[in-house]
This record gives sequence, C-alpha cells and structure tokens, in this order.
Amino acid sequence: MSKTTSGHFFEDFQIGQTIAHATPRTVTVGDVALYNGLFGNRFAVQSSDAFAEKIGYPRAPLDNLLVFHIVFGKTVPDISLNAVANLGYADCRFRKPVYPGDTLSATSEVIGLRQNASGKTGIVYVRSRGFNQDGAEVLTFARWVMVEKRDAASPAPAETLPDLPQAVDASAIGEACPILNTAAYSDVLAGSPHRYDDYAVGETIDHVDGITVEEAEHMIATRLYQNTARVHFNQYAQSKGRFGRRLIYGGHAISLARALSFNGLANAFHIAAINGGRHIAPLFAGATVFAWSQVLAKSTLPGREDVGALRLRTVATKDRPCADFPLKAGEGEGKGDDPAVILDLDYWALIPR
Amino acid sequence: MSKTTSGHFFEDFQIGQTIAHATPRTVTVGDVALYNGLFGNRFAVQSSDAFAEKIGYPRAPLDNLLVFHIVFGKTVPDISLNAVANLGYADCRFRKPVYPGDTLSATSEVIGLRQNASGKTGIVYVRSRGFNQDGAEVLTFARWVMVEKRDAASPAPAETLPDLPQAVDASAIGEACPILNTAAYSDVLAGSPHRYDDYAVGETIDHVDGITVEEAEHMIATRLYQNTARVHFNQYAQSKGRFGRRLIYGGHAISLARALSFNGLANAFHIAAINGGRHIAPLFAGATVFAWSQVLAKSTLPGREDVGALRLRTVATKDRPCADFPLKAGEGEGKGDDPAVILDLDYWALIPR
Amino acid sequence: MSKTTSGHFFEDFQIGQTIAHATPRTVTVGDVALYNGLFGNRFAVQSSDAFAEKIGYPRAPLDNLLVFHIVFGKTVPDISLNAVANLGYADCRFRKPVYPGDTLSATSEVIGLRQNASGKTGIVYVRSRGFNQDGAEVLTFARWVMVEKRDAASPAPAETLPDLPQAVDASAIGEACPILNTAAYSDVLAGSPHRYDDYAVGETIDHVDGITVEEAEHMIATRLYQNTARVHFNQYAQSKGRFGRRLIYGGHAISLARALSFNGLANAFHIAAINGGRHIAPLFAGATVFAWSQVLAKSTLPGREDVGALRLRTVATKDRPCADFPLKAGEGEGKGDDPAVILDLDYWALIPR
Repeated sequence: MSKTTSGHFFEDFQIGQTIAHATPRTVTVGDVALYNGLFGNRFAVQSSDAFAEKIGYPRAPLDNLLVFHIVFGKTVPDISLNAVANLGYADCRFRKPVYPGDTLSATSEVIGLRQNASGKTGIVYVRSRGFNQDGAEVLTFARWVMVEKRDAASPAPAETLPDLPQAVDASAIGEACPILNTAAYSDVLAGSPHRYDDYAVGETIDHVDGITVEEAEHMIATRLYQNTARVHFNQYAQSKGRFGRRLIYGGHAISLARALSFNGLANAFHIAAINGGRHIAPLFAGATVFAWSQVLAKSTLPGREDVGALRLRTVATKDRPCADFPLKAGEGEGKGDDPAVILDLDYWALIPR
Repeated sequence: MSKTTSGHFFEDFQIGQTIAHATPRTVTVGDVALYNGLFGNRFAVQSSDAFAEKIGYPRAPLDNLLVFHIVFGKTVPDISLNAVANLGYADCRFRKPVYPGDTLSATSEVIGLRQNASGKTGIVYVRSRGFNQDGAEVLTFARWVMVEKRDAASPAPAETLPDLPQAVDASAIGEACPILNTAAYSDVLAGSPHRYDDYAVGETIDHVDGITVEEAEHMIATRLYQNTARVHFNQYAQSKGRFGRRLIYGGHAISLARALSFNGLANAFHIAAINGGRHIAPLFAGATVFAWSQVLAKSTLPGREDVGALRLRTVATKDRPCADFPLKAGEGEGKGDDPAVILDLDYWALIPR
Repeated sequence: MSKTTSGHFFEDFQIGQTIAHATPRTVTVGDVALYNGLFGNRFAVQSSDAFAEKIGYPRAPLDNLLVFHIVFGKTVPDISLNAVANLGYADCRFRKPVYPGDTLSATSEVIGLRQNASGKTGIVYVRSRGFNQDGAEVLTFARWVMVEKRDAASPAPAETLPDLPQAVDASAIGEACPILNTAAYSDVLAGSPHRYDDYAVGETIDHVDGITVEEAEHMIATRLYQNTARVHFNQYAQSKGRFGRRLIYGGHAISLARALSFNGLANAFHIAAINGGRHIAPLFAGATVFAWSQVLAKSTLPGREDVGALRLRTVATKDRPCADFPLKAGEGEGKGDDPAVILDLDYWALIPR
C-alpha cells in the first residue's frame, strides 16, 4: 500500500459517504496578522478587539474568508486532488464566529454523483462542513468538481443530483453574527457613514484601488490554509503545462476583491453566506486585481433589528480598472465574459441598520 | 453621495479641525512576528519577554516603528490620499509603550494651512496622534503634505504655520520607556558591550550589512499597517506613471535602516522621538539597502539614571555600501545629495547608561 | 574599539570557551503562523492545540525545525560570520518541547580546533545549546565550520577533535516528546493510517509534490530566525560573487523537504534528532524543490510503548521530481552526487506505534 496520497478517483466516491479530512488547525492571531499582511483588510470588527467588544463580540472574530479558505484547504487532498475542474459551489453559510484559539476541522459528505458522457470523468458533489473544537459547525458549503475515473471501464454509479439553492435564503443567514449593539458601532471608526438604508438595489460601486499579486504572496497565503493543490506551488511542473505558470488559488482573488471592496462597503463587515461564484479566468502573478460590486438584493433578517443583509455581486478583473463596471464582452444576450474579468461572486454581507 | 473615499482636498481642511481616522487595530504577536520576518530585528528588549521583564517591562513592547507605521497608516486615507508630496514630519514622540493585545486608533488635527502660489495646491500641516484602547496617547507627530485643491478658483485660507521644533528637546523624550533596572540588562544577550558612555558626539558607524527588498515584502509590510497609499500596490497604474514602478513606502526604508543599525547600535533599543527626516530618493524593489549612522548629540534625561539618549542621524543608501559614509554628492556648500542616498533620518534613541 | 561586529576569526576560539549568543527570542503563535505560511506544514500535532492536548501535550508544540533554525540563527554572528564553509553537524538532539510564549537563548562551547595545512584557515567545532526561559536545555547540536585566520602567521593551536557519533543512539532520543496517549491519536485527522509497524527498513518513499522558492520567502524565513548570514540577503554583494545570486539558507531546504515529506510520513510528527546532513548543492530562488525519503533504520525507545523511531534519510532535489529516488550521478562506488540533489539529511523521527 502506497504511503503517499494520490487522492480519490470518481469510483472512490459513494452517495452518503462522509470523509473526515486531515489536519485539524488551531487558528491564531498569527494567522490573522499574516492574512492582513497579504490582503490589507480594514473592516473594523475583524481588525479591533476593542471595536468588536463594544458592539457585542467577545473579541474580534476571524475574517470569514480566512475560515473558508482553511476549511476548503482541508478538503483538497480528499476531494479535488484529481479534479479536472472545480465547477462550482453553492449554499455556503457561516454558522458560528471563529476566534483566535479555536481549532478547525472539516468533513465532506458526498451528496451527488454523475458520470460524464465520455465515461472518463464524473462530477462529484460534496457538502463540506467546518467545525470548531467543540464540534460546533462553523461553516457549511456545497461544491462540485469534475474528477477523473481510475478506470474508464468501471460502471457508472446511479446518477444523483443534489438540490441546491440558487441563493441562500435570507432567513438562513446571520447565524455567525451575534446580535449587535449597533448604537455602539462607530461609523467614523469603521470608515463609512453608509449603513443598510443607504444602499439601493441595483446600485454599482467601483472599488477604485488595485493590488498587484506576487508569486510569494499567493503561495504564502495558500500554504497558510494548508491547501495542497499542486498547480499553485510547483513551477517546474506548471512550466510544462497549459499556462506555463503557477495558477493562483481562486480564493486568493476572492480575498483580494473583498479587501478592495472596503472602499465602498466599509460597513458590510460580515460575509454571511456565499450563494455561488465563477472563476472566469485564471490569475497569474504580476497582474493587478481591481473590483466592483453591485447590490443584487437587500433583506432584513427575521427577528433582527441590528443588521440587514446586502446581496452583492462582486466582480474582479485583472489589469483593468472597474470605473465602467466590466462584465460582458459586449451588449446583449449571448455575449461572453469580458476578457479582463476573473471572478464573479454572489454573496450576502451583513451591515448595520 | 459616493460610497467610495476619494480623500480630502485642500479646501476640506480647516485650522483646528480634528479628524478621527478609520479602522482601529489590535496589534498582536502575529504582527510582531511578521514585522520581524520582514526586517530581521534583533534588539533584545523587543525580541524577548524574558529580557524585557528582567529590566522592568511587563513584557516585550512592540517596536516603536511598528507602532509608528500603524498609526501613520491610519492617517493616509484622510490626510494624504490626494497628496502631491509628503513634505516632512517633526516632533514625533513616543509617549507610552504598546504591547501585544493593545488596540491602536488615531486622530489628526489640522495645525497649519498655506496655499501655494500656483493656487492649485496647498500645504496642510497636521498633528497626528495614536491612542491605545484606554484612550492614552502612545504617539504624537506633526507632518505636512502638499495637497491638491478641488477647485483652483476657491479662495485661499488665512495662512497659519505651526511652530515646530527643529528637534525634540531631550527633556520631552523617554515617556514610552519605563524606568529600567539596567543592572539586569545583559550586554551579552543584547549583543554589544557599548552603552551610553561609549558613544561620542560626531562618531560615525557603518552598519556594514545590506538587505535587498522584494515587491512582496514591502507590500506585505505596508498592508500590515493598513496603509492604502496607491503607489505602493498598483503596478498597473504605476506602469503608466513617472517611475514605471511601484514606489516603496518611505517607512520601509526607515525600518530597514533601523534593523541594519543593530550592528553598531545594539543597545540603543528604544526610539524615543523622531526629529525629522527626508526621503531623498525613491526606493524600488530589487535594490539593496545599506545604512550608516552618526551621533549628532547626547543627552541624559531629567531625573533618570537608567538610560541616556543618543541623537542619531541614520542615512540609508541603495546599492551602495556605506563604509565611507555617503551623504553629499561632493564637498562644500551647495552640493546636492549623493545619488545613492535614499533616507536621512534624525531621531533620539535611548540606551542604557 | 569598533562598534560593529566583524565576527570571530580562528585565533579567537579556544577549547572549552563558551560563548553566550545575543538576542534571546520569545517564540509565539505569530512565528508559527509565518512558518506555516512559508512551508505549508500539515503535521497534526504541531497544527492543532486540540489534537495535541488529546494525546498528552499541554498544547501544540512548535515545529522542532523552527526551534532549530532560531537557535542556529543565534550562533551565526559569533560562530560562522567569517566561515568559509559550513562543513557539517552532528549529534543534534531535541530535549524539551518548546511552546508559544517560551523564550529561547543559545550558547556555544568550542569542542574542537584544527588548523588547516594552508595556515590560512582552521576548523572550529562547537557544541551549541538552546535554552528556554527556565534555563532548561531544549536543543543541543555539534557543528563544525571552516573559519579564516585573522593572521596566517599566528601559531596553530593544539589540535583537538571532538568525539561525535555517526548517529544519535536511539536510547538518547525522544526527550522532547512526552509520553503520548496514542489511543487518542487519530490517524484520520493526522492524515495517514501508517504507523511504526507499517514502515520497513530500506523502504523508499517519493514525496511527490514540489514547491518553488521565491526570494521574498527565504529571506522572510531566515530573518524570522534572526539569522544574519550575509549571503542570503544582500544581492548587491552577491551579484559580484561566485554565484551572482543570493544563496538560500541551507535550513530552508530542510524545512521544505520536511514539509513535503508529510505526504508519505504524516504520522512521523516529531523530529527527535538529526544525525547529520550534507548541503550538496546551493539552492537559488526560482527553483522547485522535491524530496524523497528512505527508512534507514527503526528502533523502539527504551521504556516507551507509545512511539517508535524511524531513522530517515530525506533527500531533496531542485527542478527534478523524485519518482526514481535520485542520489548518485551513476551506479557504483566513487560516483558523485546527482547534480539535482541539494540536501541529504539523516535524522530520527518519532511515530506512534
């Protein structure tokens, strides 16, 4: 039996199977500092214990995306090491705040299987969950990946497709955000006077700034998450591949876009759910990432007067400022994506009312 | 009303106005580790809790320059986002030690205004202050920047110029350094036998070593300080600009020079005040930074037998060793700066007697 | 007397002399996070407080190699600043676990001296020791370096050669690993079902993955250890040297190889001793590091049922995958090293039985 992990193939997955992923991870203020150094986050709640305590947290919580990346990273060796493509994710909900000192672990349950027509690959749908040291679920999300079969001749499993929502319902979000004393929430310290009522559905915001990415940065980030996907780290192998370059982890673009979005969304401090997202084009070191956002919808939360939710689409580009909100390659139906667009993310963010 | 910050223009500043800056920030051992990884600091007091406790600190304090950078960073979006030039700073005094777990916030008061002859720009003088979570002032400094006017036709304000000292008086420094038990201060562990009495006014010290700067490093550092000045991060925009390159934050050169100065000033562990400084030439990634120092003055501190102060000029260069103490382009009055010099910093450092 | 350190020359070393090294260092979760970001470690014991507590540690200990690098770094200014070559090390034993919050300091004792035939250089053997804040020895190792003489005419000292073991005896290892409750050790969370009995002497394991190294990364790591060896940081000086490049600290290759070795040795969580190692070829930024390991020997530990020891040879290469276990340039005696091999490390790792 080989001592090294070669990952799972399509035949290895069965409906209902639950995989406990390796390497539990205690998150610390060290992780927070490094994450801040890599992305330059400025949301006050995650930046300041004093600010967080004033509004009702025991201390500053971890940035939800840092939690997402760490939990996602754990799933890679078991779920997507042999992935031909990461096809999508849905129904991502943050369920409990995570604080420095907490230990995260993760499991994935197989919730869908569909062999492709070629017989050489199949699509695996999993529900991944992150837990803290008390066994409480802090995060849940579904994702689906195209995985190679070990043997094209092996029989196809019964096709099962999970029922996943187009968007998380607003009634299901906010669990990871305690009831806040928003009167104690200082707009001045948070960096913006704009609260829930100031945003209109349809409104677009150019986040103005751009950040150039270096090889060292995305590799440090992705290793911090213990994400082992080979395409990010191995220039020797990548030099022989399709792009000739190391491919930057898609989550890096998400974190960059989120950090840039502070300029325009400074009070939308908490990502409560991710409805879905597309990584439209690969990102490589040397490129400068820009972003813009649109308010897709707004919702109050059942029984809560403290915060409301903005459903946001945040679009990131490379080497292209976003003053004109680039998205499609042209007007009208059937036009493809603007070639500068790398990410189209749909999520719910909480903002004080 | 735009959701994004476009910064303030000259007309937006009024004498006496106080601006509370966004994003309070809890500093942690994570920030300390990253700062150490970026600069390689070796001053024992900031490196070791055990060493610091022995001489009278409750634990190792943060490097004062890290505190400076974080407080400075907070002022950028409000003060210098539209700055044409950072002209100078003065009367920078560290007033209280900062420890991991403290939360820093900042304000700036407008203390001077002068419209330039062109009518298109003006000079704004501010007094910026950093506070901890208890509201105690940990740092104060004045700086002045040239800012664009929104409208050249708007009237000039009454000219007000602040009264700033050429150098901080020695009687006003040392507040951030508790009375130390210097008998317990180990020269061996600190790395040098040279204390206050061993330094002579006029003495010059070549710090010997050089450190090459990478793009990833200065961007990680500057983001760690939540400094958002665009010239440091956005290669897409900079490629169209005057230098074609990302410009490294001036404070990065200060921190590099300070770290290099350990070799020759190992016991001058505490920067108590910065009298002023000039960023003489821009620094770009790929350059190697060297430094040398001169003792400009010495002073005991009123009522203190534990430490004395060295007034130091530390000069940093790029791609030029400092064995011959480069400063001017030639001998005599009126000669310009040596083209390799990037920084000329004047400050008070405390050293055990 | 010069204020700057120029390091020691061969004449400065005397048998029995003990040097206390500068800059004690409190290690923190910040150091752990940065180390993880740089190397991507996944060993569960060091990654998770919860996992470590379950098996008998008070919390997750620091990675032993991080401890080694920090202690080693302290010795550089006194021992190897004028080293012509780092010749070898031996009898490295980890003696106590190190936890975040501990403060490390180091001493070196001169245990051997031999002037070279040329009369211009000599070999200095030292026993270096790392201590925690309570004065307990956490690490000990011998190393020998070739050092320049200040004056070729100075007389040779009496030749003294230390008695160093080819390999640490298995009875002398494991002190830094408490007795573990291995029943509570989860193979699933640790990432591998393979324990002590599953490894056979002679077995070889290709660790599959590769990691490309960037300049920023090795410099951040080496500064984190406060290692001041000039060849790693100063491109200006190195550009005039033999390689024209910054030379990566040999310990960086060790840490990369160790992190890669998780894939195949996930349960060999604790490096207990380093028997020796050769840095066969220099490593430069841009290269991709691969690794493979061979089990050289196995041993139970006296009086311990919880863990056994694997004596491992881990070989690292640059820009060369290790599926065929590269080592020698050809078959047979007298063949040199494979030109892709950069490191050949011999160590004991503990693994649950």
